[in-house]
Amino acid sequence: MKKPAVIGKNVRKLDALEKAMGTATFTTDISLPGMLYGKVLRSPYPHAKIINIDTGKAEKLPGVEAVVCYKNTPRVKFNTSATSTFTIPPLEPVEDQYIFDSVVRYVGDEVAAVAAVSEKIAEQALKLIEVEYEELPAVFDPLEAMEPGAPDLHGPCRAGKNIPGEKIHLELGDIEKGFAEADEIFEHTFKLPVQKQAQMETQAAVAQVTADGRVTVWSTTQTPHPSRRIIATIFGLPYSKVRVLNPPYIGGGFGVRIGLSAKAEPIAVALAMQAKKPVKVVYSRREDFIASDTRHSGYVTVKTGVKKDGTFTARQMEGILNAGAYCSWSAETPGVLGAMGLSVYRCPNQMYDGHSVYTNTTPAGAMRGFGNPQAMFAIESQIDIIAEKLGIDPLEIRLKNIMQPGDKWVLPYPCRSSGLAECIKKGAAAINWQRRGKFDKTGTKRRGLGVGIGTHVSNAWPFCGDYSNAYVTIQQDGSAHLAAGVPDMGTGTVTTLAQITAEVLGISYEKIGVTFADTESTPFEIGSHASRTCYASGMAVVAAARDAKKQILDYAAEMLEVEAGDLDIENDTVVSTSNPEIKAPLSEVAVQAHLKGRQFIGVGKIIPENAPPWLAHFAEVEVDTETGQVKILKMVAAHDVGKAIHPQIVEGQLHGGLAQGIGYALGEEIKYNDKGRQLNDGFHKYMLPTAVDIPELKAIIVEAEEPSHPYGVKGVGETGLVATAPAIANAIYNAIGVRFFELPITAEKVYRALKE
Amino acid sequence: MKKPAVIGKNVRKLDALEKAMGTATFTTDISLPGMLYGKVLRSPYPHAKIINIDTGKAEKLPGVEAVVCYKNTPRVKFNTSATSTFTIPPLEPVEDQYIFDSVVRYVGDEVAAVAAVSEKIAEQALKLIEVEYEELPAVFDPLEAMEPGAPDLHGPCRAGKNIPGEKIHLELGDIEKGFAEADEIFEHTFKLPVQKQAQMETQAAVAQVTADGRVTVWSTTQTPHPSRRIIATIFGLPYSKVRVLNPPYIGGGFGVRIGLSAKAEPIAVALAMQAKKPVKVVYSRREDFIASDTRHSGYVTVKTGVKKDGTFTARQMEGILNAGAYCSWSAETPGVLGAMGLSVYRCPNQMYDGHSVYTNTTPAGAMRGFGNPQAMFAIESQIDIIAEKLGIDPLEIRLKNIMQPGDKWVLPYPCRSSGLAECIKKGAAAINWQRRGKFDKTGTKRRGLGVGIGTHVSNAWPFCGDYSNAYVTIQQDGSAHLAAGVPDMGTGTVTTLAQITAEVLGISYEKIGVTFADTESTPFEIGSHASRTCYASGMAVVAAARDAKKQILDYAAEMLEVEAGDLDIENDTVVSTSNPEIKAPLSEVAVQAHLKGRQFIGVGKIIPENAPPWLAHFAEVEVDTETGQVKILKMVAAHDVGKAIHPQIVEGQLHGGLAQGIGYALGEEIKYNDKGRQLNDGFHKYMLPTAVDIPELKAIIVEAEEPSHPYGVKGVGETGLVATAPAIANAIYNAIGVRFFELPITAEKVYRALKE
Repeated sequence: MKKPAVIGKNVRKLDALEKAMGTATFTTDISLPGMLYGKVLRSPYPHAKIINIDTGKAEKLPGVEAVVCYKNTPRVKFNTSATSTFTIPPLEPVEDQYIFDSVVRYVGDEVAAVAAVSEKIAEQALKLIEVEYEELPAVFDPLEAMEPGAPDLHGPCRAGKNIPGEKIHLELGDIEKGFAEADEIFEHTFKLPVQKQAQMETQAAVAQVTADGRVTVWSTTQTPHPSRRIIATIFGLPYSKVRVLNPPYIGGGFGVRIGLSAKAEPIAVALAMQAKKPVKVVYSRREDFIASDTRHSGYVTVKTGVKKDGTFTARQMEGILNAGAYCSWSAETPGVLGAMGLSVYRCPNQMYDGHSVYTNTTPAGAMRGFGNPQAMFAIESQIDIIAEKLGIDPLEIRLKNIMQPGDKWVLPYPCRSSGLAECIKKGAAAINWQRRGKFDKTGTKRRGLGVGIGTHVSNAWPFCGDYSNAYVTIQQDGSAHLAAGVPDMGTGTVTTLAQITAEVLGISYEKIGVTFADTESTPFEIGSHASRTCYASGMAVVAAARDAKKQILDYAAEMLEVEAGDLDIENDTVVSTSNPEIKAPLSEVAVQAHLKGRQFIGVGKIIPENAPPWLAHFAEVEVDTETGQVKILKMVAAHDVGKAIHPQIVEGQLHGGLAQGIGYALGEEIKYNDKGRQLNDGFHKYMLPTAVDIPELKAIIVEAEEPSHPYGVKGVGETGLVATAPAIANAIYNAIGVRFFELPITAEKVYRALKE
Repeated sequence: MKKPAVIGKNVRKLDALEKAMGTATFTTDISLPGMLYGKVLRSPYPHAKIINIDTGKAEKLPGVEAVVCYKNTPRVKFNTSATSTFTIPPLEPVEDQYIFDSVVRYVGDEVAAVAAVSEKIAEQALKLIEVEYEELPAVFDPLEAMEPGAPDLHGPCRAGKNIPGEKIHLELGDIEKGFAEADEIFEHTFKLPVQKQAQMETQAAVAQVTADGRVTVWSTTQTPHPSRRIIATIFGLPYSKVRVLNPPYIGGGFGVRIGLSAKAEPIAVALAMQAKKPVKVVYSRREDFIASDTRHSGYVTVKTGVKKDGTFTARQMEGILNAGAYCSWSAETPGVLGAMGLSVYRCPNQMYDGHSVYTNTTPAGAMRGFGNPQAMFAIESQIDIIAEKLGIDPLEIRLKNIMQPGDKWVLPYPCRSSGLAECIKKGAAAINWQRRGKFDKTGTKRRGLGVGIGTHVSNAWPFCGDYSNAYVTIQQDGSAHLAAGVPDMGTGTVTTLAQITAEVLGISYEKIGVTFADTESTPFEIGSHASRTCYASGMAVVAAARDAKKQILDYAAEMLEVEAGDLDIENDTVVSTSNPEIKAPLSEVAVQAHLKGRQFIGVGKIIPENAPPWLAHFAEVEVDTETGQVKILKMVAAHDVGKAIHPQIVEGQLHGGLAQGIGYALGEEIKYNDKGRQLNDGFHKYMLPTAVDIPELKAIIVEAEEPSHPYGVKGVGETGLVATAPAIANAIYNAIGVRFFELPITAEKVYRALKE
């Protein structure tokens, strides 16, 4: 293989200057002539029937141009998540929401919306909408919601009362036999909190509807094509008459807009259709908290059978997640929880059962890790318990049991490569693991070291429909243009895909233009989710660029009178590989082709495979035994990313994941009061780790190249927080000898535990 | 061939509702956050050197954010027309302009430009720019500009002083021999006026430059890709970093923006780069008149040798056109004049020589017909002179001599079909030709009938680079999306291409979405010019749709377990042609394919051929011998369009061409005073025909299907005015016995002629 010219290098990110200079365009920056501002009236009750709604006064307020509620919007059920596009039979997507319904199911549920000439007038108008509610009994805990007496939120469900979608069951080997063979059996239940994506930009959309009904929506979606499908379905339009695009930037995602941006898109469209003017809907931060998907809270139980030598004979897991009021990704997340939880360690007998449960809380959906962090907090905490009980070093028990390429597992695709052992070894060296057990135990500040490992995915195939397409076209000056439908949430996707395009084509990175995240400018693309963009979208880009390159070389062969197979492109020059004297600048080839009416248009269509990335996280903590405060001194994340196309971007992803994982471990949680109201609905109440909370972070890139990807890439977007919380929990245990079975491990909990 | 489902039908135009309701977006409607307004300072002199320019006071005016002139803009020469993209070696494009130069060459030439927060401030700032000029001698007539003592406008030119580009020479047979064989020889010189396109929307552009230098330009261009090339070249950017698009509508074109929209684009970009904010430049109507291309004025001489029986033995033509101050299309237009003039009648010995000449007037460029109306006024006037002299009916001499498929001619592609005879016969019937010569000649109002015939092109290949590409993608609901780079200037292009897409695919017209006129959303496309869109862009669309269809049928064959060759698509359903029981809705096929990650992405790449459309125009006039006023009572235009995809659109094109031809014949003319100032620089001074001037128009569609196009289409965009003026001139002669050798035939000229 040729020495790479562009990949593996920290080229300047395509969005760097615009973002640094504050000139990048986000949905909130979109301004269209005559544009109105939409605001949403939300339910103050966790569960209620709307007896009457009177929008008359609001409609009469000067400056108000549209008022919509369940009475004048389509009665078409949908799911705000992209599941309608993703789900593959025999599974069926759960579509359980209207834009507005006559029943509200959580505090924040949409009741009505107004479009007016200013935000202020729209907000005034909301106050003029008169709603008469009949309160209904509410339930907030998933275990309670499964009780016979619990309120029924959605009527008959396929898998049981209040259960969205199907119950997930995974099985490998003979679980009974496995437990029978064990020397010891461990069983623990872990409780997980509601984490919020806390992405910088709140949910937002601008909708424009032409006189003949064509719809354009600029939005913060991570998945323009699947979002288009939802919007087209709701409003009964051919997909080809709906355009969804990013503007092009979005301020973070972390999964919160895989599908619609909460309901910003359909509300904006409904208002625009009624007002016959463009409408912008931008959620406030409070709305983003209360009415936009969160991570799933819930319960994970792990039962492990183990031999005295540390060999696992059986592992059984159960996951019960709180779906909140509507399904969103709640049918899928329990599956990922189980699949990922069971795929880190070799174990011949495994079983998983899991599902979500509707409650009257904010819907839970996709968030970075998608069930995996929940699983790994449980698994990795228990591994340490087992190791201690058996008197084995935590690293040793892990290295002994980790999955190896070729091992049988529950996943429907093979593991072809693993750098996990290398991750564990390099991470241990970086954290100076041999200090473990040797810290001073006399003072009030106790140090500890902990580890957590894991895996994840590089896209969602074959769990669900997940594929990409791309166009690569060569311009007449020898520059190239890539059109790929995938958004860039700030993850550097577009930079990475441009690097790949440049690498395949032999064209300078500076000459690659990119169009992205637009259903009309790009071929179908499932979108940005499941850590898939560099892996799966990247494969489509490679295929498109190769297609274009072949066309160039075929033409150049005619022009230079040589065999096409003898030609390659390097440094923007077509050269003969056998005789370097034979060459032509690509710009010359391109312009000559133009003069003959020949064009180089590459199409990449791929059905990706999947590949597990691997990761080992290490934490060094210092617990103040007088206050319970946990200070993280250092974190190391060693990740097998297959191949780092842009190492700085990879490190950035790992740093970000570590920070988000630290918040998950130590502080972030949305709680509800007994009226179903969020107690932490803003950044002054929901405590994200800030710069002072983040320790030295060390990202170690391990490159066990993945054979299923042309450049050996694996997913990296989510891995950074998969095992952060258990590494910290294990370090805390190592410091103070207290085991926590619930996140977040707040100072208060540590303090109370130390008192007990 | 199957009975067409969509083509040939008057479906609702895709832009109909938006335009009828006033909600269609044009360049002037673009509004971007922070956008500035650009205004241009123009030369008051026809030829002068700028001794000094001081922009200091203008720069200091509050609200002014950029001032540009020749001192701070790229010194890169270009041509505002698309010739840099179109020209094929051995010809070379003439690039003779800067954005701003230190020499101005016509009244209206660009001297400087200002961007400010309001149009008013920008205009105030223009007045603060101090320019010291040194006047240079000027010349306004092309014949004078070739004299030895004439001022030299551009320094050494390849083909002689003041001659842009090459001299054109066409030859067939032996011209000397042809004249020697003639019984009679006729020679006449005709003088043509400056006509203005008078398109509804003036030249306009909005430019946005990102922090890292990527450029987006919304503009009124008819050719986004070629315009992108000019902009990228001027500013030294890879083509892939420049996006040019229509917004998407443009208010007419008629050729005036084949290439840049005058200089609106580079001026807007230069200002935006300096101001670091978006800038909108919209020409006033006066600016559009004085600083935007016109039709070429000039002189056409025709010398014809003819046998007594009316057989042509030789035809020699000469065309001398006024280029104005810069080349624009002046290197190409004389060629079309000669090529079209010599291609209507069979004649074994032909010769043409022609070229343009620089003068100090507004540049002349492309306008509907592109030299052909000039040629045909001369040719068709002379044919009537010859016919009268030989005592042959004007129809008879034409029918005897018209070109037939297979005849030798000067054009580099064959004539494969002709409905011209049918056009002449049907047109004659519609105008009731047998009345000719029988009108009452006693009163003051004299009636007459006249005819003029002609041909044109269906695109510009192989005269210049002229080809198209398209994408057709099938959506997951069985709708389809077409991405074609061609603009729709109001000509219905997009509707027609959507019909073609629907026809090929067997999908409902209502389910076809279209993206167009955007260099980033569509593959390379030369643009909208040369009557080519339905023919050449249409071929690319057919190819793309067929490619997509093949992919659908291959997949459907797997799904239905039949042979792909046995399947077709009708009414949105895939059906077996041998067993109609075997079928599946296309929506079902599409969604099943989606679930397997299969996509239907069609790419159409074509190198079009060319085909002559044919036309016969008939005019009935009434001349008031007391006032000289010519009233047109009726016009008939019978056109062989090959196949009318949307008959109403075709009729609309013919009606519009007739109206523009009537203006050309009777009233439209820009004149200059002796200081080089236009005397007719607005709609109150430049007299377009209005509704009261337009008579009953009858468009007759003749369909001699063209074998080189999959649906038999020929070009129709320009044909409507090719032979309008000579038909009217011949009718006037028929009415009053006076022959006019100069257009327009104003009432004053008729009155004076009748007095003589």
